[in-house]
Amino acid sequence: MSNTFDETIRFSLVQLDDYGPWTVTPAPRRETDLQALQARIYADFADFVGRSDGYAFYNRFDNMLGVVNKISPEAFARFQERIRNRYPVTASVGIGEATTPVEAVRRASEQLQQAGSAQDSNRREALRYGGVSGTTTSPQLTIAHFDIIDVTGTYTDDTNAVDTELAIRDSAMTLRKHLRAEHDSVAQFVGGDNVIAVCPQLSYDTFETILEHVSAEAGVEYQVGIGRGQTAHGAGSDAKHALEVCRESGISAYEVDSTDHTADDETESIKSGHGRDTVESEWVGE
Amino acid sequence: MSNTFDETIRFSLVQLDDYGPWTVTPAPRRETDLQALQARIYADFADFVGRSDGYAFYNRFDNMLGVVNKISPEAFARFQERIRNRYPVTASVGIGEATTPVEAVRRASEQLQQAGSAQDSNRREALRYGGVSGTTTSPQLTIAHFDIIDVTGTYTDDTNAVDTELAIRDSAMTLRKHLRAEHDSVAQFVGGDNVIAVCPQLSYDTFETILEHVSAEAGVEYQVGIGRGQTAHGAGSDAKHALEVCRESGISAYEVDSTDHTADDETESIKSGHGRDTVESEWVGE
Amino acid sequence: MSNTFDETIRFSLVQLDDYGPWTVTPAPRRETDLQALQARIYADFADFVGRSDGYAFYNRFDNMLGVVNKISPEAFARFQERIRNRYPVTASVGIGEATTPVEAVRRASEQLQQAGSAQDSNRREALRYGGVSGTTTSPQLTIAHFDIIDVTGTYTDDTNAVDTELAIRDSAMTLRKHLRAEHDSVAQFVGGDNVIAVCPQLSYDTFETILEHVSAEAGVEYQVGIGRGQTAHGAGSDAKHALEVCRESGISAYEVDSTDHTADDETESIKSGHGRDTVESEWVGE
Amino acid sequence: MSNTFDETIRFSLVQLDDYGPWTVTPAPRRETDLQALQARIYADFADFVGRSDGYAFYNRFDNMLGVVNKISPEAFARFQERIRNRYPVTASVGIGEATTPVEAVRRASEQLQQAGSAQDSNRREALRYGGVSGTTTSPQLTIAHFDIIDVTGTYTDDTNAVDTELAIRDSAMTLRKHLRAEHDSVAQFVGGDNVIAVCPQLSYDTFETILEHVSAEAGVEYQVGIGRGQTAHGAGSDAKHALEVCRESGISAYEVDSTDHTADDETESIKSGHGRDTVESEWVGE
Repeated sequence: MSNTFDETIRFSLVQLDDYGPWTVTPAPRRETDLQALQARIYADFADFVGRSDGYAFYNRFDNMLGVVNKISPEAFARFQERIRNRYPVTASVGIGEATTPVEAVRRASEQLQQAGSAQDSNRREALRYGGVSGTTTSPQLTIAHFDIIDVTGTYTDDTNAVDTELAIRDSAMTLRKHLRAEHDSVAQFVGGDNVIAVCPQLSYDTFETILEHVSAEAGVEYQVGIGRGQTAHGAGSDAKHALEVCRESGISAYEVDSTDHTADDETESIKSGHGRDTVESEWVGE
Repeated sequence: MSNTFDETIRFSLVQLDDYGPWTVTPAPRRETDLQALQARIYADFADFVGRSDGYAFYNRFDNMLGVVNKISPEAFARFQERIRNRYPVTASVGIGEATTPVEAVRRASEQLQQAGSAQDSNRREALRYGGVSGTTTSPQLTIAHFDIIDVTGTYTDDTNAVDTELAIRDSAMTLRKHLRAEHDSVAQFVGGDNVIAVCPQLSYDTFETILEHVSAEAGVEYQVGIGRGQTAHGAGSDAKHALEVCRESGISAYEVDSTDHTADDETESIKSGHGRDTVESEWVGE
Repeated sequence: MSNTFDETIRFSLVQLDDYGPWTVTPAPRRETDLQALQARIYADFADFVGRSDGYAFYNRFDNMLGVVNKISPEAFARFQERIRNRYPVTASVGIGEATTPVEAVRRASEQLQQAGSAQDSNRREALRYGGVSGTTTSPQLTIAHFDIIDVTGTYTDDTNAVDTELAIRDSAMTLRKHLRAEHDSVAQFVGGDNVIAVCPQLSYDTFETILEHVSAEAGVEYQVGIGRGQTAHGAGSDAKHALEVCRESGISAYEVDSTDHTADDETESIKSGHGRDTVESEWVGE
Repeated sequence: MSNTFDETIRFSLVQLDDYGPWTVTPAPRRETDLQALQARIYADFADFVGRSDGYAFYNRFDNMLGVVNKISPEAFARFQERIRNRYPVTASVGIGEATTPVEAVRRASEQLQQAGSAQDSNRREALRYGGVSGTTTSPQLTIAHFDIIDVTGTYTDDTNAVDTELAIRDSAMTLRKHLRAEHDSVAQFVGGDNVIAVCPQLSYDTFETILEHVSAEAGVEYQVGIGRGQTAHGAGSDAKHALEVCRESGISAYEVDSTDHTADDETESIKSGHGRDTVESEWVGE
């Protein structure tokens, strides 16, 4: 792993206050209500983070992660206010910044842990962010968007939904652990067969090696689109476009050259790319 | 595993129609919008299923599972109508019934697979349920509600959120695969450190063995509350109460004796239980 | 007004508990958060009622009305549970049944008033329903669905949004007050230029007279579709189809003959109708 | 009316595209689904506007208004994207700026009308804002928050819900029409017995005259809190605090002196005020 740029990644950790005890007070609450509550809080968090071109992950639902370079720490007070005014629970927030995703999450976690236990009934709506301030630009934030090659034909249309999900999650776990252990990356399952990784500056070749590792260890073939940019959404949008190139062309790793365009420009055309083979890049549906 | 009763478990599999292609048409859609959409559809599904005392699992979000003994197959048309009128996507539904959870999911999956591919643009709002009709009573539907002993002290308050989640998910995967392979059970992570398993008739001793297996293989100590009942909510509510006994008393597996009470009676008191040790059962907060 | 059938109309009144004080405790809460909260609670109520073929009205948001013939009083406990588990407020419910809509609402209101004041902090989740039980069939529940002829050309595309809304609401108020004073009907604005009235058995000719009254008093031309059925949704669906006939044909009042079909049958064709002129009835878009 | 400051008020008009036809295509959609959809879109709009200290009004639901001084016109593209990705409908937006609220709404409406008819199927996601750019500061945006004196005792706990709502809405209509005709103000009902008016610079005495007019014409006694500030939320928060003074003290119109504090400072204390009588101002619950 090489991190040649002085990049800064900002993560927020949102933790529901004293949530476990609440779920069983005065008696255990109905499971489907809890499931729905957690999902809706996460949807709101995704909206909040997405408005400022961040990325959100549900993590464990009572703990959620966001890549939030363009959100000032103070702005999270508005998110906490909304949760308090809309739900029967409250949320605390820790924010951390570092040159690797894992270190940023570690600092965000530490902020919260110093504020009090997740089950401390006296810790309500803590908002801690250490030395973090303003917003920050990460010149080359790297997002890798993985999915499984032909998951529909191989699994969804062929195998029952339980074994399909176990197989996908098992391979995703292999991928996620490898990315964390070897590349200081935070990778999360985001639905379907998709895994999104927030990475430090990893080279194109590194991603090829990662795919090979997962194939060898889990026996599942992933492909990956790679994007770099100043925000999670900017980099992630490039990664999604690159993954479309993989799907169309059959190459397993592709990186959009982000120097020629603005990621949010929906009419963009890709000027150049980086794949195992020469590829005619045309976006699906465009 | 012994399944001495002629129990019937009904599962529904909800699959978003042609969802993968939609997420990239005409161009890849913003990730946080997709995350929020998936979470909200799941919350609505949980509400729908919960209204009739079922249980819902997000599975892969584009594929969701529900235990739906008290919902007639035709009633799912109303759910499909609501999705169509509220979201930019539609959903197909397959329903299956069997004496084990895995077989019920397999049949539900088969129904959908026969209706067409998940990415067949001509398959819209399929509703298939084979010979399933009316509602069904499962005399002893078994729900096991697992969580990790002292997860807050061991992980949440001590370790960063990425490593905590990886550790929890990794052990949950061990538990889930074991339950599926050895006990025909469908186990799903439901947030925090909770795993809920829909099981055939498994004995109390079997659950003790399961905990030992996970402890040995994953090095993580789980506890489990066990409930039996005619609906997922009824059995699951007993399981939650039983898990409270574990938390209070320190025994690792507890089963509520469900013969003396109605599961939904919130004022219930537990007449008898089944644990490693004698236990004074008092619900937290009651 | 003639009410020749022994019809029974069931209304529910949902009232948020001690809501006014909550909105300013500990300090006035952000207005947009309150607006969003009220709207979401109402959406959930509409979903709840709609699942059983009822109709919902937002009324004053902190007080909401539902036509709920197919929902047993006890089922509202599940709605109250969901509100409690999802929002920072709770709700009380009164249910009343009578042969006219206004009397049914009066009885529902009385049930709640007897349970305690809307701002009594000790009244939480009251559920009162007098002698109401089970579900009920109203052989000829009448729904009238009104809208303004060519509202888009007359107002929306021509006048500013403030004056347009004032003009529409002012005429709707004339219509609503007339329906209440002269015909014991409960009429509510439901968005756009639509007013839906829950009526006792009113004849077709009566609706023509009502339109003339509003035209003379408010100077605004409404049209109305009339439907009769066993549920609000059944009757209302017929009323919507009838209103489509008005829009297509130019007649101002139309009633679907509901004896030949099931209201919920979306493939239905109208066998006969009742309008000022002979009309070729073809549904828009079908 | 005197407008001695060069204040600028920015309104946005959000209009669902071709919504009426959609509601009946291919057949009339279920009314409760439409009600729920409209309410949820409005809740999202309130969240969007509230994040930047604006105010939102549901108006007719298919047309919604927002006071949006701190939102750049371009930012609405993000709102439109979210609607498109979350709902089965799309929205167009017009933005207008002027020294009076009514003129600002008129300009916003004109922008949309020039983009095409509300029922033009070719107009999709128009975003028009004339010469409006960036964000703007309104040095003394005035918000008046009205409610009815003792509405709970007079109506809610005493009269049925239909007659209560008709009485409240009827008096609110008198208030709203008067504010529009005489004071170029945009007043909207926001639930319960609350009416919020966005006003040009009106003097304290003017509000006393307004209350007298409504009392004489509609026979209903309102009270009003008045706030001034740079944003709708800032001014509105002061107005809410001032209305609390009315509720506590019995004076019918109160204005917070906004020169001494920041409206968003929740720990603020009121240094001075403006009422009919001397008043000890202590916020409820603080």
